[in-house]
Amino acid sequence: MTNLVIVGSVALDTVKTPFGKVKDALGGAATYSSYAASFFAKPAIVGVVGSDFPKQHLQLLQQRGIDTGGVKVDKNGRTFRWEGYYEYDMNEAKTVKTELGVFANFKPQLPPSYKDAEYAFLANIDPVLQLEVLQQVRKPKLVLLDTMNYWINNRKRQLLEVVKKVDVLLLNDSEARQLFETPNLVKAAGAALKLGPRFVIIKKGEHGALLFSDGNHFSAPSYPLENIRDPTGCGDSFAGALIGYLASRNSGSEKDIRKAIIYGSVVASFNAEDFSLERMKRLTAAEIEKRYREFERMREF
Amino acid sequence: MTNLVIVGSVALDTVKTPFGKVKDALGGAATYSSYAASFFAKPAIVGVVGSDFPKQHLQLLQQRGIDTGGVKVDKNGRTFRWEGYYEYDMNEAKTVKTELGVFANFKPQLPPSYKDAEYAFLANIDPVLQLEVLQQVRKPKLVLLDTMNYWINNRKRQLLEVVKKVDVLLLNDSEARQLFETPNLVKAAGAALKLGPRFVIIKKGEHGALLFSDGNHFSAPSYPLENIRDPTGCGDSFAGALIGYLASRNSGSEKDIRKAIIYGSVVASFNAEDFSLERMKRLTAAEIEKRYREFERMREF
Repeated sequence: MTNLVIVGSVALDTVKTPFGKVKDALGGAATYSSYAASFFAKPAIVGVVGSDFPKQHLQLLQQRGIDTGGVKVDKNGRTFRWEGYYEYDMNEAKTVKTELGVFANFKPQLPPSYKDAEYAFLANIDPVLQLEVLQQVRKPKLVLLDTMNYWINNRKRQLLEVVKKVDVLLLNDSEARQLFETPNLVKAAGAALKLGPRFVIIKKGEHGALLFSDGNHFSAPSYPLENIRDPTGCGDSFAGALIGYLASRNSGSEKDIRKAIIYGSVVASFNAEDFSLERMKRLTAAEIEKRYREFERMREF
Repeated sequence: MTNLVIVGSVALDTVKTPFGKVKDALGGAATYSSYAASFFAKPAIVGVVGSDFPKQHLQLLQQRGIDTGGVKVDKNGRTFRWEGYYEYDMNEAKTVKTELGVFANFKPQLPPSYKDAEYAFLANIDPVLQLEVLQQVRKPKLVLLDTMNYWINNRKRQLLEVVKKVDVLLLNDSEARQLFETPNLVKAAGAALKLGPRFVIIKKGEHGALLFSDGNHFSAPSYPLENIRDPTGCGDSFAGALIGYLASRNSGSEKDIRKAIIYGSVVASFNAEDFSLERMKRLTAAEIEKRYREFERMREF
């Protein structure tokens, strides 16, 4: 039995930044987030890969204690692929192409051992699939939802249906402005809270993250990174560490969500230091704790 | 004798935002910053106005305990005027026109009672004038320098000369990137510190502010304002409250600079709530303290 289910993409990424490039490297929202969560909890993932997906990638996740029993191998297609690049300022990924591959016909099916999970992360994926996963989880205590501008543009109605059913909505700042049609993030968060979630977290990349709940506000700093090699997967690493920490504490209190946001920021900041999952593969619990203490000192006044 | 000298523009602003407009309203960097500083200290200002400048504006400053003995009235010209507007997202001021007026021939001349001030704020103005003021202050303990992209484009060499002579350099994020030719703010701050200042503060508007010093880093949140009516003068109000607080504590320690940044953020957030100096005119010490406590809760984890 698992206590944390993550659904999202398992992908092969081709990425170029001013500091290097990788071709068909391990990526995907479920991959980054489950790996980040594995520093705190034992996540189980739901996703699909094609027959071309290298076995060692799944083994890498399994070695971290990640349950990959929910990853279907679809012999009839290729693994989901994303190709993109970042320019000098590293702020925004430019997509060159996306090949849906086996994701085009994916119907998520949770193994029985996943269905009693109390924590769930619906990573960036078609909201229709997010909803199907949510319906299979029997009694979740805390559901975290991520999305992206593509779904706001193409599945807004379905996305808003999912938003109504989750506890924590995660968005980046431009998505929040777009989804709630206001330039003001405070107003966007207020509109989101009215739909149902108890918490809204707005990721602002190099500017940190904001937490909004009824009447309360938390502003998390970002780590001052001098060398960012590849920001791919930082949002997913943030979310994975966040929900992993909450699952490990078995808590959805605001106090713990604040701490979870800092752990998310810590792991995401490490993730940006190298391509694919390379930095997380070398990351230790001691490094995480050390940087968490640095975050504490960064906001003292 | 005064302990805090501020040099900068005293202006008449014509501003339009989605929430209203004002014509020839009181503005200018020295005005906003000295008014903000007056909540903590007794600043003295150096500047120039034309014969058209309404007397009641100077009286308003004097009633706050601001020494305006260093404001020259130049009968041969008009007061400095700025006209600009903000679009819906309120992030960036668009300049319609700037009339230098009496500032074109201004030579700052400090009254004798200003020359022993230990705290000085060189607000946004031609770096050549900033340098002339600095040369007249006998033994400053802490000098704070602000600037803007116009001087980076047109007086870079002179600006860097001033940077070398000050204790605290204040920039917004785009100016920091431009002046030090890097998209990375950590690298920009590192380059700035190498020139001489002990502290570099990078203002990021709605994303808060960053403090860099040798080996230390502080990240200040911004206040989650739902209604911004006019951001004009927020940077100057931030700087004024900051140096006003430091002068009142007679301190340039990092600990106090962190607190001063929060006081600066508090006063700037109030300033954005109304046009010109309208909100600051109604602002009380109790409101400042209350919002300062809110900042404390916003960063707790």
